[in-house]
Amino acid sequence: MEKGPIQYVLAVGSGKGGVGKSSTTALLALALARKGLKVGILDADITGPSIPKLTGLRGPLVDKGEGIEPAKSPEGIHVVSAQFMVEDDQTPVIWRGPLVTRLIIQFYGGVNWGPLDYLLLDMPPGTSDVPLTVFQTIPLDGMIFVFTPQELAALIVQKAMNMARDLHVPLLGVVENEAFLNCPHCATRIEPFGPSNVDRVAEEYGIPVLARFPVDPRISQLGDAGRLAEYDAPEPNQFADALLASIASIQKNKLTVL
Amino acid sequence: MEKGPIQYVLAVGSGKGGVGKSSTTALLALALARKGLKVGILDADITGPSIPKLTGLRGPLVDKGEGIEPAKSPEGIHVVSAQFMVEDDQTPVIWRGPLVTRLIIQFYGGVNWGPLDYLLLDMPPGTSDVPLTVFQTIPLDGMIFVFTPQELAALIVQKAMNMARDLHVPLLGVVENEAFLNCPHCATRIEPFGPSNVDRVAEEYGIPVLARFPVDPRISQLGDAGRLAEYDAPEPNQFADALLASIASIQKNKLTVL
Repeated sequence: MEKGPIQYVLAVGSGKGGVGKSSTTALLALALARKGLKVGILDADITGPSIPKLTGLRGPLVDKGEGIEPAKSPEGIHVVSAQFMVEDDQTPVIWRGPLVTRLIIQFYGGVNWGPLDYLLLDMPPGTSDVPLTVFQTIPLDGMIFVFTPQELAALIVQKAMNMARDLHVPLLGVVENEAFLNCPHCATRIEPFGPSNVDRVAEEYGIPVLARFPVDPRISQLGDAGRLAEYDAPEPNQFADALLASIASIQKNKLTVL
Repeated sequence: MEKGPIQYVLAVGSGKGGVGKSSTTALLALALARKGLKVGILDADITGPSIPKLTGLRGPLVDKGEGIEPAKSPEGIHVVSAQFMVEDDQTPVIWRGPLVTRLIIQFYGGVNWGPLDYLLLDMPPGTSDVPLTVFQTIPLDGMIFVFTPQELAALIVQKAMNMARDLHVPLLGVVENEAFLNCPHCATRIEPFGPSNVDRVAEEYGIPVLARFPVDPRISQLGDAGRLAEYDAPEPNQFADALLASIASIQKNKLTVL
Protein backbone atom coordinates (compact mmCIF):
# COMPACT_ATOMS: atom_id res chain seq x y z
CA MET A 1 0.00 0.00 0.00
CA GLU A 2 1.36 3.39 -0.93
CA LYS A 3 1.03 5.98 1.75
CA GLY A 4 2.11 9.56 1.52
CA PRO A 5 4.43 10.70 4.28
CA ILE A 6 3.11 12.31 7.44
CA GLN A 7 5.39 15.05 8.77
CA TYR A 8 4.14 15.27 12.35
CA VAL A 9 1.91 12.97 14.38
CA LEU A 10 0.48 14.72 17.44
CA ALA A 11 -1.86 13.35 20.12
CA VAL A 12 -4.46 15.50 21.86
CA GLY A 13 -5.40 13.94 25.17
CA SER A 14 -6.11 14.51 28.82
CA GLY A 15 -6.80 11.29 30.70
CA LYS A 16 -10.04 12.96 31.77
CA GLY A 17 -13.19 12.80 29.68
CA GLY A 18 -15.42 15.70 28.76
CA VAL A 19 -12.79 18.40 28.99
CA GLY A 20 -13.09 19.31 25.32
CA LYS A 21 -10.37 17.16 23.72
CA SER A 22 -12.39 16.71 20.55
CA SER A 23 -13.39 20.37 20.19
CA THR A 24 -9.77 21.31 20.82
CA THR A 25 -8.59 18.83 18.18
CA ALA A 26 -11.14 20.05 15.63
CA LEU A 27 -10.44 23.75 16.27
CA LEU A 28 -6.69 23.13 15.99
CA ALA A 29 -7.13 21.18 12.75
CA LEU A 30 -9.22 24.03 11.28
CA ALA A 31 -6.65 26.65 12.32
CA LEU A 32 -3.78 24.65 10.82
CA ALA A 33 -5.78 24.11 7.62
CA ARG A 34 -6.41 27.88 7.40
CA LYS A 35 -2.62 28.29 7.34
CA GLY A 36 -2.57 26.17 4.19
CA LEU A 37 -1.25 23.08 6.00
CA LYS A 38 -2.50 19.59 5.15
CA VAL A 39 -4.17 18.13 8.22
CA GLY A 40 -5.73 14.81 9.20
CA ILE A 41 -7.66 13.73 12.30
CA LEU A 42 -7.51 10.13 13.51
CA ASP A 43 -10.40 9.76 15.97
CA ALA A 44 -8.83 7.37 18.48
CA ASP A 45 -11.87 7.56 20.77
CA ILE A 46 -13.30 4.39 19.26
CA THR A 47 -16.11 3.86 21.78
CA GLY A 48 -17.01 7.53 22.29
CA PRO A 49 -16.33 9.32 18.99
CA SER A 50 -17.09 13.06 18.84
CA ILE A 51 -15.17 14.18 15.76
CA PRO A 52 -17.83 13.14 13.20
CA LYS A 53 -20.49 15.26 14.90
CA LEU A 54 -18.14 18.24 15.25
CA THR A 55 -17.02 18.14 11.63
CA GLY A 56 -20.40 17.14 10.18
CA LEU A 57 -18.73 14.24 8.32
CA ARG A 58 -20.25 10.79 7.77
CA GLY A 59 -19.18 7.34 6.62
CA PRO A 60 -19.00 4.81 5.23
CA LEU A 61 -15.27 4.19 4.90
CA VAL A 62 -14.30 2.79 1.52
CA ASP A 63 -11.08 1.21 0.29
CA LYS A 64 -10.45 1.98 -3.39
CA GLY A 65 -7.28 -0.08 -3.48
CA GLU A 66 -4.90 2.38 -1.85
CA GLY A 67 -6.04 1.88 1.73
CA ILE A 68 -9.13 3.18 3.49
CA GLU A 69 -10.15 6.57 2.10
CA PRO A 70 -10.63 9.17 4.86
CA ALA A 71 -13.65 11.46 4.82
CA LYS A 72 -12.77 15.00 3.68
CA SER A 73 -14.14 18.19 5.19
CA PRO A 74 -14.84 21.29 3.06
CA GLU A 75 -11.61 22.74 4.54
CA GLY A 76 -9.66 19.74 3.23
CA ILE A 77 -9.23 18.01 6.60
CA HIS A 78 -8.96 14.22 6.30
CA VAL A 79 -10.91 12.38 8.99
CA VAL A 80 -11.21 8.74 10.03
CA SER A 81 -13.51 7.63 12.87
CA ALA A 82 -15.08 4.39 14.08
CA GLN A 83 -18.38 6.28 13.84
CA PHE A 84 -18.09 5.98 10.06
CA MET A 85 -18.32 2.19 10.43
CA VAL A 86 -21.67 1.95 12.22
CA GLU A 87 -25.18 2.37 10.90
CA ASP A 88 -26.34 5.42 12.81
CA ASP A 89 -24.87 7.74 15.37
CA GLN A 90 -26.58 6.10 18.34
CA THR A 91 -25.28 2.58 17.73
CA PRO A 92 -22.70 1.77 20.41
CA VAL A 93 -19.33 0.27 19.46
CA ILE A 94 -19.10 -2.44 22.15
CA TRP A 95 -15.59 -3.73 21.71
CA ARG A 96 -12.97 -5.00 24.14
CA GLY A 97 -9.49 -3.46 24.28
CA PRO A 98 -7.62 -5.73 21.83
CA LEU A 99 -10.13 -5.03 19.03
CA VAL A 100 -10.15 -1.31 19.80
CA THR A 101 -6.38 -1.07 19.67
CA ARG A 102 -6.20 -3.13 16.48
CA LEU A 103 -8.61 -0.71 14.81
CA ILE A 104 -6.48 2.27 15.83
CA ILE A 105 -3.38 0.68 14.32
CA GLN A 106 -5.43 0.03 11.18
CA PHE A 107 -6.55 3.66 11.17
CA TYR A 108 -2.93 4.77 11.41
CA GLY A 109 -1.26 2.45 8.92
CA GLY A 110 -4.14 1.32 6.72
CA VAL A 111 -5.60 4.67 5.71
CA ASN A 112 -4.65 6.51 2.53
CA TRP A 113 -3.86 9.69 4.45
CA GLY A 114 -1.98 11.13 1.49
CA PRO A 115 0.84 13.52 2.25
CA LEU A 116 -0.01 15.36 5.49
CA ASP A 117 1.75 18.07 7.44
CA TYR A 118 -0.06 17.17 10.66
CA LEU A 119 -1.98 14.10 11.76
CA LEU A 120 -3.87 14.80 15.01
CA LEU A 121 -4.96 11.90 17.20
CA ASP A 122 -8.05 12.63 19.30
CA MET A 123 -7.34 10.37 22.29
CA PRO A 124 -9.97 8.71 24.51
CA PRO A 125 -9.99 9.29 28.28
CA GLY A 126 -8.12 7.02 30.69
CA THR A 127 -4.65 5.52 30.83
CA SER A 128 -5.57 2.02 29.70
CA ASP A 129 -5.32 0.09 26.41
CA VAL A 130 -5.73 2.82 23.83
CA PRO A 131 -3.18 5.37 25.06
CA LEU A 132 -0.79 2.55 25.90
CA THR A 133 -1.04 1.10 22.39
CA VAL A 134 -0.78 4.52 20.77
CA PHE A 135 2.31 5.40 22.78
CA GLN A 136 3.92 2.02 22.05
CA THR A 137 3.12 1.65 18.35
CA ILE A 138 2.58 5.06 16.75
CA PRO A 139 5.67 7.29 16.43
CA LEU A 140 4.25 10.37 18.15
CA ASP A 141 6.10 13.64 17.73
CA GLY A 142 4.38 15.08 20.75
CA MET A 143 1.24 15.41 22.80
CA ILE A 144 -1.03 18.29 23.82
CA PHE A 145 -2.93 18.03 27.12
CA VAL A 146 -6.39 19.49 27.66
CA PHE A 147 -7.53 20.76 31.07
CA THR A 148 -10.54 22.29 32.72
CA PRO A 149 -10.12 24.39 35.87
CA GLN A 150 -11.21 21.84 38.50
CA GLU A 151 -8.37 20.53 40.64
CA LEU A 152 -9.88 17.09 40.08
CA ALA A 153 -9.41 17.44 36.32
CA ALA A 154 -5.83 18.66 36.80
CA LEU A 155 -5.03 15.59 38.91
CA ILE A 156 -6.29 13.20 36.25
CA VAL A 157 -4.58 15.08 33.40
CA GLN A 158 -1.30 14.96 35.31
CA LYS A 159 -1.60 11.17 35.41
CA ALA A 160 -1.82 11.16 31.62
CA MET A 161 1.11 13.61 31.42
CA ASN A 162 3.21 11.37 33.66
CA MET A 163 2.30 8.36 31.57
CA ALA A 164 3.35 10.17 28.37
CA ARG A 165 6.60 11.33 29.96
CA ASP A 166 7.37 7.80 31.21
CA LEU A 167 6.86 6.54 27.66
CA HIS A 168 9.11 9.30 26.19
CA VAL A 169 6.40 11.21 24.33
CA PRO A 170 7.35 14.93 24.15
CA LEU A 171 4.87 17.13 26.05
CA LEU A 172 4.15 20.06 23.72
CA GLY A 173 1.97 22.12 26.02
CA VAL A 174 -1.38 22.45 27.76
CA VAL A 175 -4.72 23.90 26.73
CA GLU A 176 -7.32 25.14 29.18
CA ASN A 177 -11.01 24.82 28.34
CA GLU A 178 -14.08 26.21 30.10
CA ALA A 179 -11.96 28.53 32.23
CA PHE A 180 -14.43 31.42 32.33
CA LEU A 181 -17.49 32.94 30.70
CA ASN A 182 -18.80 36.45 30.45
CA CYS A 183 -22.42 36.98 31.45
CA PRO A 184 -24.27 37.91 28.24
CA HIS A 185 -26.39 40.40 30.21
CA CYS A 186 -23.97 42.28 32.51
CA ALA A 187 -20.58 41.08 31.15
CA THR A 188 -19.45 39.91 34.60
CA ARG A 189 -16.62 37.41 34.25
CA ILE A 190 -17.69 34.11 35.87
CA GLU A 191 -15.41 31.15 36.66
CA PRO A 192 -18.04 28.40 36.69
CA PHE A 193 -15.60 25.63 37.60
CA GLY A 194 -13.45 27.61 40.02
CA PRO A 195 -10.07 29.27 39.55
CA SER A 196 -7.53 28.11 36.98
CA ASN A 197 -4.76 25.58 37.75
CA VAL A 198 -3.21 25.48 34.34
CA ASP A 199 -0.32 27.92 34.89
CA ARG A 200 0.85 26.01 37.93
CA VAL A 201 0.79 22.68 36.09
CA ALA A 202 2.47 24.08 32.97
CA GLU A 203 5.24 25.57 35.09
CA GLU A 204 5.68 22.33 37.02
CA TYR A 205 6.26 20.43 33.77
CA GLY A 206 8.22 23.24 32.08
CA ILE A 207 5.87 23.43 29.10
CA PRO A 208 3.85 26.31 27.61
CA VAL A 209 0.13 27.11 27.94
CA LEU A 210 -0.86 26.93 24.27
CA ALA A 211 -4.43 28.21 24.54
CA ARG A 212 -7.23 29.19 26.89
CA PHE A 213 -10.76 28.71 25.62
CA PRO A 214 -13.74 30.26 27.44
CA VAL A 215 -17.06 28.52 28.04
CA ASP A 216 -18.62 29.71 24.80
CA PRO A 217 -22.11 28.48 23.88
CA ARG A 218 -21.16 29.14 20.24
CA ILE A 219 -18.60 26.30 20.42
CA SER A 220 -21.31 23.88 21.68
CA GLN A 221 -23.87 25.11 19.19
CA LEU A 222 -21.60 25.19 16.12
CA GLY A 223 -20.15 21.82 17.21
CA ASP A 224 -23.62 20.30 17.56
CA ALA A 225 -24.43 21.59 14.07
CA GLY A 226 -21.18 20.22 12.56
CA ARG A 227 -20.20 23.78 11.67
CA LEU A 228 -17.25 24.40 13.97
CA ALA A 229 -15.39 25.91 10.98
CA GLU A 230 -17.58 29.00 11.42
CA TYR A 231 -16.17 29.69 14.89
CA ASP A 232 -14.28 32.93 14.25
CA ALA A 233 -12.77 33.84 17.65
CA PRO A 234 -9.00 34.53 17.64
CA GLU A 235 -8.12 31.70 20.09
CA PRO A 236 -7.80 28.81 17.59
CA ASN A 237 -5.33 30.69 15.38
CA GLN A 238 -3.29 31.79 18.40
CA PHE A 239 -3.34 28.17 19.57
CA ALA A 240 -1.98 26.94 16.23
CA ASP A 241 0.81 29.57 16.32
CA ALA A 242 1.79 28.64 19.88
CA LEU A 243 1.81 24.96 19.00
CA LEU A 244 4.04 25.44 15.95
CA ALA A 245 6.44 27.48 18.12
CA SER A 246 6.50 24.71 20.75
CA ILE A 247 7.25 22.06 18.14
CA ALA A 248 10.05 24.21 16.69
CA SER A 249 11.50 24.75 20.16
CA ILE A 250 11.48 21.03 20.99
CA GLN A 251 13.19 20.24 17.71
CA LYS A 252 15.83 22.88 18.34
CA ASN A 253 16.49 21.34 21.76
CA LYS A 254 16.73 17.92 20.22
CA LEU A 255 19.36 19.15 17.78
CA THR A 256 21.27 20.78 20.61
CA VAL A 257 21.29 17.53 22.55
CA LEU A 258 22.61 15.61 19.54
CA MET B 1 -15.32 -15.11 52.70
CA GLU B 2 -18.46 -13.87 54.42
CA LYS B 3 -20.14 -10.98 52.73
CA GLY B 4 -23.19 -9.16 53.96
CA PRO B 5 -25.98 -8.96 51.47
CA ILE B 6 -26.31 -6.00 49.11
CA GLN B 7 -29.93 -5.09 48.43
CA TYR B 8 -29.51 -3.04 45.25
CA VAL B 9 -26.57 -2.65 42.89
CA LEU B 10 -26.92 0.45 40.70
CA ALA B 11 -24.56 1.77 38.02
CA VAL B 12 -24.12 5.48 37.33
CA GLY B 13 -22.77 6.00 33.83
CA SER B 14 -23.00 7.97 30.64
CA GLY B 15 -20.65 6.68 27.98
CA LYS B 16 -19.32 10.25 27.83
CA GLY B 17 -16.57 11.48 30.13
CA GLY B 18 -16.59 14.67 32.14
CA VAL B 19 -20.34 15.01 32.45
CA GLY B 20 -20.27 14.70 36.23
CA LYS B 21 -20.83 10.97 36.76
CA SER B 22 -18.63 10.93 39.86
CA SER B 23 -20.14 14.06 41.44
CA THR B 24 -23.59 12.64 40.71
CA THR B 25 -22.63 9.32 42.31
CA ALA B 26 -21.15 11.00 45.38
CA LEU B 27 -24.10 13.40 45.83
CA LEU B 28 -26.56 10.50 45.47
CA ALA B 29 -24.62 8.40 48.00
CA LEU B 30 -24.64 11.27 50.48
CA ALA B 31 -28.38 11.86 50.01
CA LEU B 32 -29.17 8.16 50.49
CA ALA B 33 -26.93 8.04 53.58
CA ARG B 34 -28.80 11.05 55.01
CA LYS B 35 -31.98 8.95 54.77
CA GLY B 36 -30.32 6.42 57.08
CA LEU B 37 -29.58 3.96 54.28
CA LYS B 38 -26.32 2.00 54.15
CA VAL B 39 -24.46 2.95 50.98
CA GLY B 40 -21.28 1.86 49.22
CA ILE B 41 -19.47 3.27 46.18
CA LEU B 42 -17.44 1.00 43.91
CA ASP B 43 -15.26 3.30 41.80
CA ALA B 44 -15.24 1.39 38.52
CA ASP B 45 -13.29 4.15 36.76
CA ILE B 46 -10.02 2.33 37.38
CA THR B 47 -7.83 4.49 35.16
CA GLY B 48 -9.50 7.85 35.92
CA PRO B 49 -10.76 7.67 39.51
CA SER B 50 -12.54 10.76 40.88
CA ILE B 51 -14.37 9.40 43.92
CA PRO B 52 -11.38 9.53 46.33
CA LYS B 53 -10.85 13.25 45.68
CA LEU B 54 -14.58 14.01 45.98
CA THR B 55 -14.97 12.11 49.25
CA GLY B 56 -11.58 13.06 50.68
CA LEU B 57 -10.83 9.38 51.36
CA ARG B 58 -7.42 7.71 50.98
CA GLY B 59 -5.94 4.23 50.90
CA PRO B 60 -4.32 1.87 51.42
CA LEU B 61 -6.77 -1.01 51.10
CA VAL B 62 -6.27 -3.67 53.77
CA ASP B 63 -7.61 -7.20 54.07
CA LYS B 64 -8.16 -8.18 57.71
CA GLY B 65 -9.27 -11.69 56.79
CA GLU B 66 -12.85 -10.91 55.75
CA GLY B 67 -12.06 -9.46 52.33
CA ILE B 68 -10.70 -6.03 51.43
CA GLU B 69 -11.91 -3.41 53.90
CA PRO B 70 -13.48 -0.41 52.16
CA ALA B 71 -12.59 3.12 53.25
CA LYS B 72 -15.37 4.74 55.28
CA SER B 73 -16.50 8.34 55.00
CA PRO B 74 -17.69 10.32 58.05
CA GLU B 75 -21.23 9.79 56.74
CA GLY B 76 -20.69 6.01 56.83
CA ILE B 77 -20.32 5.54 53.06
CA HIS B 78 -18.09 2.58 52.15
CA VAL B 79 -15.75 3.34 49.26
CA VAL B 80 -13.34 1.26 47.20
CA SER B 81 -11.19 2.79 44.43
CA ALA B 82 -8.07 1.84 42.47
CA GLN B 83 -6.71 5.18 43.65
CA PHE B 84 -6.32 3.61 47.10
CA MET B 85 -3.78 1.19 45.61
CA VAL B 86 -1.26 3.69 44.22
CA GLU B 87 1.33 5.78 46.02
CA ASP B 88 0.09 9.27 45.28
CA ASP B 89 -2.79 10.80 43.40
CA GLN B 90 -0.77 11.62 40.27
CA THR B 91 0.51 8.10 39.62
CA PRO B 92 -1.28 6.74 36.55
CA VAL B 93 -2.81 3.26 36.59
CA ILE B 94 -1.59 2.01 33.18
CA TRP B 95 -3.43 -1.25 32.80
CA ARG B 96 -4.92 -3.05 29.83
CA GLY B 97 -8.57 -4.10 29.78
CA PRO B 98 -8.29 -7.66 31.19
CA LEU B 99 -6.48 -6.43 34.32
CA VAL B 100 -8.91 -3.55 34.74
CA THR B 101 -11.94 -5.78 34.51
CA ARG B 102 -10.42 -8.36 36.86
CA LEU B 103 -9.92 -5.63 39.45
CA ILE B 104 -13.55 -4.54 39.18
CA ILE B 105 -14.76 -8.09 39.74
CA GLN B 106 -12.42 -8.24 42.75
CA PHE B 107 -13.84 -4.95 44.01
CA TYR B 108 -17.35 -6.36 43.73
CA GLY B 109 -16.88 -9.84 45.16
CA GLY B 110 -13.71 -9.52 47.22
CA VAL B 111 -14.59 -6.52 49.38
CA ASN B 112 -16.13 -6.78 52.83
CA TRP B 113 -18.94 -4.42 51.89
CA GLY B 114 -20.98 -5.50 54.92
CA PRO B 115 -24.74 -5.32 54.64
CA LEU B 116 -25.60 -2.48 52.24
CA ASP B 117 -28.88 -1.06 51.03
CA TYR B 118 -27.28 0.44 47.91
CA LEU B 119 -23.99 -0.20 46.15
CA LEU B 120 -23.36 2.49 43.52
CA LEU B 121 -20.92 1.78 40.67
CA ASP B 122 -19.26 4.90 39.26
CA MET B 123 -18.71 3.78 35.67
CA PRO B 124 -15.90 4.92 33.36
CA PRO B 125 -16.67 6.53 29.97
CA GLY B 126 -16.94 4.48 26.79
CA THR B 127 -18.69 1.27 25.81
CA SER B 128 -15.64 -1.00 25.89
CA ASP B 129 -14.24 -3.54 28.37
CA VAL B 130 -15.37 -2.14 31.69
CA PRO B 131 -19.07 -1.54 31.04
CA LEU B 132 -19.22 -4.79 29.10
CA THR B 133 -17.72 -6.77 32.00
CA VAL B 134 -19.88 -4.99 34.55
CA PHE B 135 -23.04 -5.69 32.56
CA GLN B 136 -22.07 -9.32 32.03
CA THR B 137 -20.81 -10.24 35.49
CA ILE B 138 -22.37 -7.98 38.12
CA PRO B 139 -26.11 -8.42 38.77
CA LEU B 140 -27.16 -4.80 38.25
CA ASP B 141 -30.59 -3.77 39.45
CA GLY B 142 -30.51 -0.72 37.24
CA MET B 143 -28.54 2.11 35.76
CA ILE B 144 -28.73 5.91 35.94
CA PHE B 145 -27.49 7.96 32.96
CA VAL B 146 -25.80 11.33 33.31
CA PHE B 147 -26.12 14.00 30.61
CA THR B 148 -24.95 17.49 29.87
CA PRO B 149 -26.95 19.71 27.50
CA GLN B 150 -24.81 19.38 24.35
CA GLU B 151 -26.39 17.31 21.62
CA LEU B 152 -23.01 15.65 21.24
CA ALA B 153 -23.16 14.43 24.86
CA ALA B 154 -26.73 13.20 24.36
CA LEU B 155 -25.64 11.17 21.34
CA ILE B 156 -22.88 9.43 23.25
CA VAL B 157 -25.05 8.82 26.32
CA GLN B 158 -27.70 7.27 24.11
CA LYS B 159 -25.09 4.80 22.87
CA ALA B 160 -24.49 3.74 26.48
CA MET B 161 -28.26 3.58 27.08
CA ASN B 162 -28.72 1.36 24.03
CA MET B 163 -25.88 -0.86 25.19
CA ALA B 164 -27.47 -1.23 28.64
CA ARG B 165 -30.87 -1.96 27.11
CA ASP B 166 -29.38 -4.56 24.77
CA LEU B 167 -27.80 -6.25 27.80
CA HIS B 168 -31.10 -6.15 29.77
CA VAL B 169 -30.03 -3.66 32.43
CA PRO B 170 -33.09 -1.67 33.64
CA LEU B 171 -32.78 2.05 32.80
CA LEU B 172 -33.82 3.88 35.99
CA GLY B 173 -33.70 7.44 34.71
CA VAL B 174 -31.54 10.30 33.55
CA VAL B 175 -29.76 13.13 35.36
CA GLU B 176 -28.83 16.40 33.71
CA ASN B 177 -25.70 18.25 34.83
CA GLU B 178 -24.41 21.72 33.96
CA ALA B 179 -27.76 22.69 32.42
CA PHE B 180 -27.68 26.33 33.50
CA LEU B 181 -26.11 28.82 35.86
CA ASN B 182 -27.30 32.08 37.33
CA CYS B 183 -24.96 35.06 36.97
CA PRO B 184 -23.75 35.87 40.51
CA HIS B 185 -23.93 39.58 39.66
CA CYS B 186 -27.22 40.12 37.81
CA ALA B 187 -28.90 36.69 38.31
CA THR B 188 -29.44 36.22 34.56
CA ARG B 189 -30.00 32.57 33.79
CA ILE B 190 -27.28 31.39 31.37
CA GLU B 191 -27.26 28.10 29.44
CA PRO B 192 -23.50 27.80 28.86
CA PHE B 193 -23.73 24.56 26.88
CA GLY B 194 -26.90 25.38 24.95
CA PRO B 195 -30.49 24.27 25.50
CA SER B 196 -31.41 21.04 27.27
CA ASN B 197 -32.04 17.75 25.46
CA VAL B 198 -32.79 15.64 28.48
CA ASP B 199 -36.60 15.73 28.38
CA ARG B 200 -36.63 14.58 24.77
CA VAL B 201 -34.26 11.67 25.50
CA ALA B 202 -36.10 10.66 28.70
CA GLU B 203 -39.40 10.62 26.83
CA GLU B 204 -37.92 8.64 23.96
CA TYR B 205 -36.79 5.91 26.37
CA GLY B 206 -39.89 6.18 28.60
CA ILE B 207 -37.87 6.87 31.75
CA PRO B 208 -37.97 9.72 34.28
CA VAL B 209 -35.66 12.73 34.63
CA LEU B 210 -34.38 12.10 38.17
CA ALA B 211 -32.46 15.34 38.72
CA ARG B 212 -31.20 18.53 37.10
CA PHE B 213 -28.04 20.02 38.56
CA PRO B 214 -26.93 23.55 37.67
CA VAL B 215 -23.34 24.59 36.95
CA ASP B 216 -22.55 25.43 40.56
CA PRO B 217 -18.99 26.47 41.44
CA ARG B 218 -19.70 25.21 44.97
CA ILE B 219 -19.90 21.64 43.64
CA SER B 220 -16.44 22.01 42.02
CA GLN B 221 -14.97 23.73 45.03
CA LEU B 222 -16.42 21.39 47.69
CA GLY B 223 -15.52 18.42 45.47
CA ASP B 224 -11.93 19.64 45.07
CA ALA B 225 -11.73 19.98 48.86
CA GLY B 226 -13.20 16.49 49.50
CA ARG B 227 -16.10 18.13 51.31
CA LEU B 228 -19.01 17.42 48.99
CA ALA B 229 -21.07 16.41 52.05
CA GLU B 230 -21.39 20.13 52.84
CA TYR B 231 -23.30 20.81 49.61
CA ASP B 232 -26.71 21.72 51.00
CA ALA B 233 -28.82 22.49 47.90
CA PRO B 234 -32.14 20.59 47.69
CA GLU B 235 -31.31 18.79 44.41
CA PRO B 236 -29.46 15.76 45.85
CA ASN B 237 -32.29 14.85 48.21
CA GLN B 238 -34.90 15.28 45.47
CA PHE B 239 -32.71 13.10 43.26
CA ALA B 240 -32.61 10.33 45.89
CA ASP B 241 -36.41 10.48 46.30
CA ALA B 242 -36.98 10.31 42.53
CA LEU B 243 -34.58 7.38 42.23
CA LEU B 244 -36.26 5.38 45.01
CA ALA B 245 -39.62 6.00 43.31
CA SER B 246 -38.22 4.81 39.97
CA ILE B 247 -36.84 1.62 41.55
CA ALA B 248 -40.19 0.96 43.26
CA SER B 249 -42.02 1.50 39.98
CA ILE B 250 -39.75 -0.89 38.05
CA GLN B 251 -40.21 -3.55 40.72
CA LYS B 252 -43.97 -3.12 40.64
CA ASN B 253 -43.92 -3.58 36.87
CA LYS B 254 -41.80 -6.68 37.27
CA LEU B 255 -44.34 -8.14 39.70
CA THR B 256 -47.16 -7.28 37.33
CA VAL B 257 -45.41 -9.07 34.49
CA LEU B 258 -44.91 -12.19 36.63
